[in-house]
Amino acid sequence: MSQEKNVCSMGKQSIELKTPVYIRESASIVGTKEGQGPLAELFDMIGEDDMFGCDSWEEAESSLQKDAVFLALNKAGMKKEEIRYIFAGDLLGQSIASSFGLASYEIPLIGMYGACSTCGLTLSMGAMAVSGGFAEHVLCVTSSHFASAEKEFRFPLGYGNQRPLSASWTVTGSGAFLLSGDKGTKARAKITGITTGKIMDYGLKDSQNMGACMAPAACDTIYNNLKDFGRKPSDYDKIITGDLGTVGQHALLDLLNEKDVDIAGQHMDCGIEIYDAKEQDTHAGGSGCGCSAVTLSAYILKKIEEGVWKRVLFVPTGALLSKTSFNEGQTVPGIAHGVVIEAIGEGEA
Amino acid sequence: MSQEKNVCSMGKQSIELKTPVYIRESASIVGTKEGQGPLAELFDMIGEDDMFGCDSWEEAESSLQKDAVFLALNKAGMKKEEIRYIFAGDLLGQSIASSFGLASYEIPLIGMYGACSTCGLTLSMGAMAVSGGFAEHVLCVTSSHFASAEKEFRFPLGYGNQRPLSASWTVTGSGAFLLSGDKGTKARAKITGITTGKIMDYGLKDSQNMGACMAPAACDTIYNNLKDFGRKPSDYDKIITGDLGTVGQHALLDLLNEKDVDIAGQHMDCGIEIYDAKEQDTHAGGSGCGCSAVTLSAYILKKIEEGVWKRVLFVPTGALLSKTSFNEGQTVPGIAHGVVIEAIGEGEA
Repeated sequence: MSQEKNVCSMGKQSIELKTPVYIRESASIVGTKEGQGPLAELFDMIGEDDMFGCDSWEEAESSLQKDAVFLALNKAGMKKEEIRYIFAGDLLGQSIASSFGLASYEIPLIGMYGACSTCGLTLSMGAMAVSGGFAEHVLCVTSSHFASAEKEFRFPLGYGNQRPLSASWTVTGSGAFLLSGDKGTKARAKITGITTGKIMDYGLKDSQNMGACMAPAACDTIYNNLKDFGRKPSDYDKIITGDLGTVGQHALLDLLNEKDVDIAGQHMDCGIEIYDAKEQDTHAGGSGCGCSAVTLSAYILKKIEEGVWKRVLFVPTGALLSKTSFNEGQTVPGIAHGVVIEAIGEGEA
Repeated sequence: MSQEKNVCSMGKQSIELKTPVYIRESASIVGTKEGQGPLAELFDMIGEDDMFGCDSWEEAESSLQKDAVFLALNKAGMKKEEIRYIFAGDLLGQSIASSFGLASYEIPLIGMYGACSTCGLTLSMGAMAVSGGFAEHVLCVTSSHFASAEKEFRFPLGYGNQRPLSASWTVTGSGAFLLSGDKGTKARAKITGITTGKIMDYGLKDSQNMGACMAPAACDTIYNNLKDFGRKPSDYDKIITGDLGTVGQHALLDLLNEKDVDIAGQHMDCGIEIYDAKEQDTHAGGSGCGCSAVTLSAYILKKIEEGVWKRVLFVPTGALLSKTSFNEGQTVPGIAHGVVIEAIGEGEA
C-alpha cells in the first residue's frame, strides 16, 4: 500500500487523509416505524416487529448490530477473518448492545462512545486505522433502539408519558460500514477528511430538547472543518448533521450565521429525513446512534454513488447525558464528529 | 517526523509500531483507601476524602480525570493547546465521568469504552494516532470511583451489603498519559506494540467474581501477543493484567497452562498490587478503569525508568456487563487490551 504522510497541523482540529479510505460496502437494518418512513425503500432490511425475535429490547438491539455486520460482510463478499478491527458503540450503559451483538464475530473490538455522534467517531477512528497502515479492512457499526433508549434515558414505555414537540424519536436501526485501504472491485465512496469534535456545553439542561443541546457542538465542528480545509459551505453538496431535528436545525443555522457562515443551502439532517414528522408523530425528528448510520448507508451513500453529490460533510451529533447526570441536575453537553465523504472519481485507482 | 510503515499482518491480532510512541509524562491521583495501600508513596496526589470537594460521587470522579490531565500536562510543561486528542473513558453509563471532567479542556475528545480495560484501549488508539502521523501529542485518561461504581453496578452503599471473597474493590483514581511522537527532553517509556482484544465469553454470570469472567480474555490476548511477536513469556520482565485479582489470577495461569504457556514467573496484577487485601479487607483485589491506570503511572513506569524492567506486556482487563444485562440474566463477557511498553534505550534519539 502506498502511503503519503497524513497531515496533522498544530492548531487545527481536522486531519486530511492523504491516503483516502474507501467505504467498500455498508448495510442498514431498521425497525417497523423507520420502515414506514420516507426512506423505507432504501434500507437493506426492515424488521417485522421491533423485538427482532429476541426476549428483550437490549437483545433486539444487539441483534441489529449482528445483522448489520453480517449484511455488510455478505454484500462485500468478505469473511470475518479478513476484518482486523470492529469499531462499535451504542447508547446503552456500558455499551451492551455492541458487546453482546458482536461477541460471536471474534474480531478485535474497539469500543467507542460519543452518544448519537458515535457513527462519526467510529468512521473517524476506523479511517485513521486504515489510512495509518494499521489495518487493511475494518468494520464500523453503531445502533440504537427506540425502546431500549427510552428505558435507558427516560421513562418505562408503559407509563405512556407525553412528549414535548422538541423531543426526538430514537431510531430503531443499525448501520455497518466496511472500510478498506483499497477499493477492490468497487466501493461506495471514500473518506478524505476528519474533524474530531470537542465537548460544547451552553448550559442547557432539557433532555427533551436535545437538538438545541447539540447544535453548538455541530456549529463548532462545521465551522472548524470549513476553516481547517479552507472551504466555503458551497464546497460541499450537503452538510449533514445526525439528529438535530427541526428545533436543533434552527439553532444551528442561527449559531453559524453569528459567525458569518450560511449553510442554509447545504444543510440536511438525518433525523429530519428519516421520518415524516407530521404523519408519523415523531415531533422534532429521529435521533440515536442508528439514525445517522442507517441514513448514511441507505440514502447518503446512494446519492454519492449516483453522482448527485460529489462531496458531503457528515456530522453525527451526540448529547453526552446519562439519566444519572440528568437527575443530578447537570447540563446536557454536546459533541459532533465530522467526516468528509467524497465520490470516487472516474477511473480512480 | 520520520515514519516507517507500521506492520499489519493478516491473521495476526497485534500491531508492531515501527515508529515507537513515547509516554512522555503521566500522572496519578487516588482516593483515601488507595492512599493507605502499599503503593501510597508513589501516587502524585491522594485525596483528603473521596468527594474531592464535589457534591456527588460522579462529579468527584469527573474531578479525578480533570486533575490527572492537569497534573500530566503540568509535569510535561505543556499546554492544553498542544494536545490534539484526548482518548478517554470510564465505567459510568454514557461515560459521564469523562464528559463532565474533560469539557473545560476544549480538546477534541475520542470517547472509548472497554470497561476496566479502557486504559489499554486508550493507550492503544492514542499510540496508533501518534504513530500513524495523525497527532503530535495526545492524552489518554481513564478513571473509576468506588462509590460511583457501586451505585452504577451493584447496590446503594447505604445497604451495607455483604461482599463475597471473590469480589473486587473498585479503585478510586485516575491516571493520565501524555503520548508523543518525539520524546522531548525526557520520556518515561515507549509503546512498541499493541494487541487488541476480542470479546471472550465462557458463560459465567457472577458479577461478584469478575476476575474469573475476565481471565479467558486476558489469556487470549496474552497468548496472541506471544504468538504474533514470536516471543516467550520470559521475553517480558513482567506480564501485567489489570484487575483479575487473586481468583482471576489462578484462572489465568490455569488457562494459559492448558495452552502450554507458563507465565507464573512473570505475572503481576495491578488489582493485587494496589491494596493489602488482608489489612484493607478488599477481598480479591482492586478493579476499575482507574486501577491499572494509576498502577501504570505510579509503579510500572517507575520500575521501567529505573531500569528494573526493560519490557513489559500491560494487559488491562474488562468485564462487559451492565446492571441491565446482569438483571436480564446475561453472561459477563470479558475483554483485554494489550500494550507492549519498553524502556527507552541509552542515547535513543
